[in-house]
Amino acid sequence: MSLNDNYEEYRRKGIFFVVTGPSGVGKTTIMERVLERDDQLTYSVSHTTRDKRPGEVNGEDYYFVDREKFEGCRDDGRFLEWAEIYGDYYGTSREEIEKIKSEGRDPFMDIDVQGAEQLRKDSSLYGVFVFLAPPSLDELERRIVARGAEGSETRETRIRVAREELSRISEFDYLIVNKELKKAVDSLEAVIRAERLKV
Amino acid sequence: MSLNDNYEEYRRKGIFFVVTGPSGVGKTTIMERVLERDDQLTYSVSHTTRDKRPGEVNGEDYYFVDREKFEGCRDDGRFLEWAEIYGDYYGTSREEIEKIKSEGRDPFMDIDVQGAEQLRKDSSLYGVFVFLAPPSLDELERRIVARGAEGSETRETRIRVAREELSRISEFDYLIVNKELKKAVDSLEAVIRAERLKV
Repeated sequence: MSLNDNYEEYRRKGIFFVVTGPSGVGKTTIMERVLERDDQLTYSVSHTTRDKRPGEVNGEDYYFVDREKFEGCRDDGRFLEWAEIYGDYYGTSREEIEKIKSEGRDPFMDIDVQGAEQLRKDSSLYGVFVFLAPPSLDELERRIVARGAEGSETRETRIRVAREELSRISEFDYLIVNKELKKAVDSLEAVIRAERLKV
Repeated sequence: MSLNDNYEEYRRKGIFFVVTGPSGVGKTTIMERVLERDDQLTYSVSHTTRDKRPGEVNGEDYYFVDREKFEGCRDDGRFLEWAEIYGDYYGTSREEIEKIKSEGRDPFMDIDVQGAEQLRKDSSLYGVFVFLAPPSLDELERRIVARGAEGSETRETRIRVAREELSRISEFDYLIVNKELKKAVDSLEAVIRAERLKV
């Protein structure tokens, strides 16, 4: 080792941070707070066929595409993972992740539980998988009701899916319980910081 | 999973945090700062045959014992690891670690590099091994000189040993460079927090 090399040879570059958890758990809010304070992370934008919600921007929140275009990309093998959720397609393009890594930055993404499981199987990604859980299923139900309807699924379906998702926590690297927003944000930041310190 | 169990089944208890690094790197200062703010950690007190320095307290800084007593404990297999460093014995007793874990707390210890490597081989300990490094060997030499003589070893010997120790960083879980005290303390806290969030 040379004397003043800042130990770069021990550091990983382009760590892929993946945050998942049931719909309504608070992923977006927590990730936004972390992104504001961490200039090494870049949000990885997914593709979707679902309708744009008010305030969403194409290329920032999602790449909004139609079903034909999505299926074309999928058939060309351009997605690292894809899934159909509540009738809409969602996918992560290889190109998006490679672009962020090639800039020497850490891709940061939000994905549903089944998508995370597909990514986890791809060991070449060196992903760090964080499961964000509600304090309880009762509390999650309260949040889902407060947020209002999304798509055509009933509240009962969402709760049933959440229950299934929670049973898969043990397949993830880290578990953060979103009981208090500030604590959850601090926890996610600690995970990111610690992973960067790994040898 | 029950609904309100706080996810305890996914959490590890009694994580053994081990901090190592060359003599003079700042282990004691950093660990004291972390201990002040973390009420889940308990400092694991080692045994030694070296002389007590001014201000040190038996049973707090070390258990100070004579060579005969140390060798007796060692021969009875009561040490998880032991080493002779600069002519003095140092060791970690199984009893000390077990006592801290049985209280549901996380043992936190300071150890030399060769001791850490012995502990690392004992997979039943579930240890987390943190290497604390100086910004450079030049800077470490400056700190060693500023701290003054310890034992009979020359400055050159300490630098040579430090150089050997730095070549073994890749055997550790985390690398923290003590360039700025506050940052190093924050990094060690992030590692501890993240390890507690591991599934």
